[in-house]
Amino acid sequence: MFITFEGIEGSGKSTALQGLAAWLQQHGHGVAVTREPGGSRLGRTLRSILLDLGNTDITPEAELFLYLADRAQHVAQVVRPALDEGMVVLSDRYADSTVVYQGYGRGLDPMMLRQFNDVAVGGLWPDLTILLDLEPEAGLNRALARNIREGMHAAEGRFEAESLAFHTRVREGYLTWAALHGGRYRVVDATQSPEDVVRDVVGIVAAALGDVSSGEAVSGRTGA
Amino acid sequence: MFITFEGIEGSGKSTALQGLAAWLQQHGHGVAVTREPGGSRLGRTLRSILLDLGNTDITPEAELFLYLADRAQHVAQVVRPALDEGMVVLSDRYADSTVVYQGYGRGLDPMMLRQFNDVAVGGLWPDLTILLDLEPEAGLNRALARNIREGMHAAEGRFEAESLAFHTRVREGYLTWAALHGGRYRVVDATQSPEDVVRDVVGIVAAALGDVSSGEAVSGRTGA
Repeated sequence: MFITFEGIEGSGKSTALQGLAAWLQQHGHGVAVTREPGGSRLGRTLRSILLDLGNTDITPEAELFLYLADRAQHVAQVVRPALDEGMVVLSDRYADSTVVYQGYGRGLDPMMLRQFNDVAVGGLWPDLTILLDLEPEAGLNRALARNIREGMHAAEGRFEAESLAFHTRVREGYLTWAALHGGRYRVVDATQSPEDVVRDVVGIVAAALGDVSSGEAVSGRTGA
Repeated sequence: MFITFEGIEGSGKSTALQGLAAWLQQHGHGVAVTREPGGSRLGRTLRSILLDLGNTDITPEAELFLYLADRAQHVAQVVRPALDEGMVVLSDRYADSTVVYQGYGRGLDPMMLRQFNDVAVGGLWPDLTILLDLEPEAGLNRALARNIREGMHAAEGRFEAESLAFHTRVREGYLTWAALHGGRYRVVDATQSPEDVVRDVVGIVAAALGDVSSGEAVSGRTGA
């Protein structure tokens, strides 16, 4: 089973993903945790290019192709091998991030992006995508606070430095894209406490896995 | 005017390009000389990734997207600005390299590659493309000798290390692609001496520029 986490900066994807991974392991599932950009060796180099605030001169098209390069390598070297071993694979961002950030955010055509992504992922789309949804103001405040905790300047990240208008387009793009792909998307209210978000996510995944041992988790509120 | 040079490793693209640049400058043209990968600041980082023999694990799709990222940035930051200033732009490799190496060489669909390239270059295709054609055995011998002269191991380059069968597919792919785009392609016999190759190239470009002052150059043999 392949599960991806999507959402704006500061929406709590990493925390939710770690909480789900712990729950899955407790329930006997093999889990592979990965992320984009940067899930492969090549990807770690590309991640440093893509998130470097010094690279504000990268054109939208060049940025798009760097993300696709990272993704193609990530799918071939990390995601597919882990799925082939029977692991549950959890990825912090995946192809939908490109559709939403480069499409709705930067103005490239979302349907063209879907087609390009199809080549990058070789047709491998997630079974389930968790969208952590909240207002961009709240997400950015969290992301900036996190950067300061980690010893960075507050806006020391190429996306944190984007305008609020950009992040608003991204948030709305996510909701649009989720509505267009309702079959695999679940929207979770990311304004909740981290514990409540994890409870919701676990409930969604437990239901998807048909895991009856997690009845207490399934009772959580699951989605907007 | 935008002129690109194509051909297998060791076909003499750099020498021919420099000879043409010198002739153009002597005849009063502003000239911008560039190359792919590596024509932009971002591109120099990508070039080091793409040509590093340590990166043999890069998948064909990831390689494709890295070249497209390099190209998108190169067109936006180098080629278009130079053309806008009225320069003659000479590029050592361009979009056709991707079609031929990743398509005919690695087996991706050439027509899909043409479409992806169209996004990377924003519709900017060359006015003239010079294909320097020779047998891959001869080209590889030249490329390996050059590497040794430059203090590298002979096969210290990701493409020089490819099989002869790969380079043969690339050479035949170039001839096929040139035949499909006869309007802008000129094929030059690269087994000639460097001086004769430059004379042929100058003749082709002089004719294209309608430059009557170069009658002596136009007399050269121009193409296979």
